[in-house]
Amino acid sequence: MTTALSIRQYRSDDPKFGQYMEKHAVVGVDSTVEVEPAVRAILDDVRARGVEALIEYTQRFDGVTLDASSLEVSREEREEALRRAPSVEVDALRRAAERIRAYQEKLVPRGFMDRQADETLGQLVIPMDRVGVYVPGGKATYPSSVLMNVIPARIAGVPEIVMVTPPGQEGISPLVLAAAEVAGVDRVFRVGGAQAVAALAYGAGLPRVDKIVGPGNKYVAAAKRLVFGAVSIDMIAGPSEILVLADDTADPDWVAMDLLSQAEHDEDAVSRLITWSPGFCDRVRKSLERLSFDILRGDIARTSLSRHGLLVETGSAEEALALANRFAPEHLEICAADADELLKGIRHAGAVFLGHYTPEAVGDYVAGPNHVLPTGGTARFSSPLGPYDFVKRTSVIRFEAAALRREAGAITTLADAEGLTAHGDSVRLRVRQD
Amino acid sequence: MTTALSIRQYRSDDPKFGQYMEKHAVVGVDSTVEVEPAVRAILDDVRARGVEALIEYTQRFDGVTLDASSLEVSREEREEALRRAPSVEVDALRRAAERIRAYQEKLVPRGFMDRQADETLGQLVIPMDRVGVYVPGGKATYPSSVLMNVIPARIAGVPEIVMVTPPGQEGISPLVLAAAEVAGVDRVFRVGGAQAVAALAYGAGLPRVDKIVGPGNKYVAAAKRLVFGAVSIDMIAGPSEILVLADDTADPDWVAMDLLSQAEHDEDAVSRLITWSPGFCDRVRKSLERLSFDILRGDIARTSLSRHGLLVETGSAEEALALANRFAPEHLEICAADADELLKGIRHAGAVFLGHYTPEAVGDYVAGPNHVLPTGGTARFSSPLGPYDFVKRTSVIRFEAAALRREAGAITTLADAEGLTAHGDSVRLRVRQD
Repeated sequence: MTTALSIRQYRSDDPKFGQYMEKHAVVGVDSTVEVEPAVRAILDDVRARGVEALIEYTQRFDGVTLDASSLEVSREEREEALRRAPSVEVDALRRAAERIRAYQEKLVPRGFMDRQADETLGQLVIPMDRVGVYVPGGKATYPSSVLMNVIPARIAGVPEIVMVTPPGQEGISPLVLAAAEVAGVDRVFRVGGAQAVAALAYGAGLPRVDKIVGPGNKYVAAAKRLVFGAVSIDMIAGPSEILVLADDTADPDWVAMDLLSQAEHDEDAVSRLITWSPGFCDRVRKSLERLSFDILRGDIARTSLSRHGLLVETGSAEEALALANRFAPEHLEICAADADELLKGIRHAGAVFLGHYTPEAVGDYVAGPNHVLPTGGTARFSSPLGPYDFVKRTSVIRFEAAALRREAGAITTLADAEGLTAHGDSVRLRVRQD
Repeated sequence: MTTALSIRQYRSDDPKFGQYMEKHAVVGVDSTVEVEPAVRAILDDVRARGVEALIEYTQRFDGVTLDASSLEVSREEREEALRRAPSVEVDALRRAAERIRAYQEKLVPRGFMDRQADETLGQLVIPMDRVGVYVPGGKATYPSSVLMNVIPARIAGVPEIVMVTPPGQEGISPLVLAAAEVAGVDRVFRVGGAQAVAALAYGAGLPRVDKIVGPGNKYVAAAKRLVFGAVSIDMIAGPSEILVLADDTADPDWVAMDLLSQAEHDEDAVSRLITWSPGFCDRVRKSLERLSFDILRGDIARTSLSRHGLLVETGSAEEALALANRFAPEHLEICAADADELLKGIRHAGAVFLGHYTPEAVGDYVAGPNHVLPTGGTARFSSPLGPYDFVKRTSVIRFEAAALRREAGAITTLADAEGLTAHGDSVRLRVRQD
């Protein structure tokens, strides 16, 4: 049985579209509150019992029997996976990794040290000591995500990167292991779920890390939320989304295929088109109806388009830009004649794809920017994953006696005004005795 | 009744010190889980009822009767506060603000746009639209914190900064309002607690913001944790701490006063000294015993030193540095002859104060770096608050047809390997028709 396609289509001045916007106003990511009690129990148990608990949960949830010595994937297994993976795929991974490295290197924050005669002010930028990357198991495996999560940490200078992934009945996907080799992961452990997050956060059964990144199911998301504070985490990702802004210089088939490429992910994926060219929505809808039967995952795509898809015609490009900023989309394609000019009106988006020859897939795999992007409107305040997420900063202050004398009045006035007179005394003592 | 001082003192090879380190191993910030249900109810109520709920909670928790028109502090009241505040204090605020601006300006991330013949890759750095700053009320008011939270957002280019603070029976502290004027806050609302956080996060009764920063009690902290995801938040701050590394070139009185200046904050504050100079701990302890009776808040300081204070003598400076990295302190003073050299061994600290003339108070008020710093060992993965916390990044990708043709093989290979064939189709369609 094939799913029919029925996709919402509005003109932006239609009151029904106003209602849609009210209902779909950005509210950030969903909570994982319903699984919290179960996840909290796993976290506490792993924290208390370490490896023993990891082995039990892996038996229970993954149906795989491990012992303390088989928890880590050996160097031999990893090299074997790299040899076994199809060489055309490994070459593609290497090409992607090369381009990702080149781009991510431009994003490493730099410190500074400004030395004056009587004072030095600076900021050190120091990589985290150890980072954990979660890689989901299951049928759909995403070696590209291994590259996207690991390489920015490597480029930031993190000395040790640990990967965890649940072992399926058939073992870990060779292409995922190959991607770990290409990206330069230091250690790989076959453990997943909330138990892996706990082990990394508390150093219970696995090396303790400073940050945990990578996508996962709702148990993994809840676990990351609960260990936040003990370690750093990346954002909790919601369903993936694309917003295409297009005028009638765009090929309706190309736009439709880009919408389908988002919709094929899963039934929660969100594909939206906004155009200011009269009649263009109809053309794209017809392309969707036709092309959705050409693609392999057409049923999934038609379901997600019917549930979450949207085609909107506005009165102007300006109005389309304003709507785009309200959506603050994860992926934003601008398939229009003056894409570069329109970009100037964008305030909120995870990644922007400009022109007719930049389908989202370019950025998903090889362009260089990260495909780990803020979802659910969180591009209002969040950024693509990058090396800046794997460093931390340290302020440096050095006053000589002259600088302290010069600023003593302001410091002691403010300290005393706040009732923190020992703060003032720490300055007075030095200035007086000097 | 005065509190006696009794402070823990160890040599680092003492097994008891080993036990201390085990017990005080870094575990991040405390959870606020016990107040979560009460806070969740307030969040839901404010989200549903907006201003009406804000007025009711302000009546109940602050004992202050407001109406919709008195929720916002008027321009006249704010200018009046600036005129009424002692001019020496306003001048000190202005001096601090000037130095904070000069330093923070060096920390604004810059984007880039790399245009090649057939592809453009870049990253935009865009300020958030609106930021909320929480300023605690109560007896102790900290105008310096207003500067430290607001100025980095202003420097980042945030167009609108909204401040919320609970109204006491005597109104908002004039010096806090004066600091808001000096820092350039756009709007001030007299509302605090979890209700203020909810209103900012959901745009219910107050302007909706993209990020909420600033310290608060456990209800405020719990509320920030719960709205995380719908908005961005800063770290949940734990008790303030100082770690002093010193050799015997330091004046024991100066070191003692710096420890006291941390300890005077409150009874949870943490002051620690590590030295590699034999006998130096004893000298500092004697200074603490004497000076703690000279300072205004001596009782509080002696209580916090007795509860959380620590004096340690190590066998070497290297050992002291290794311990400092294990603590990952919020504030780290290096009061030693070769402070600049020792800095090279530091991997984890919020802010470092070098040499004998840089007491922590310098950085608390006027130096320029932020006094909002990672506590509780979170300097392993967190940074001082800065302009980088108030911007977000957007990747920009533009491929021309030639670039797409060049990379098509790698993209389609990876997309197909991941089973996302419509991703591949979106490339094939363009390359084929081109």
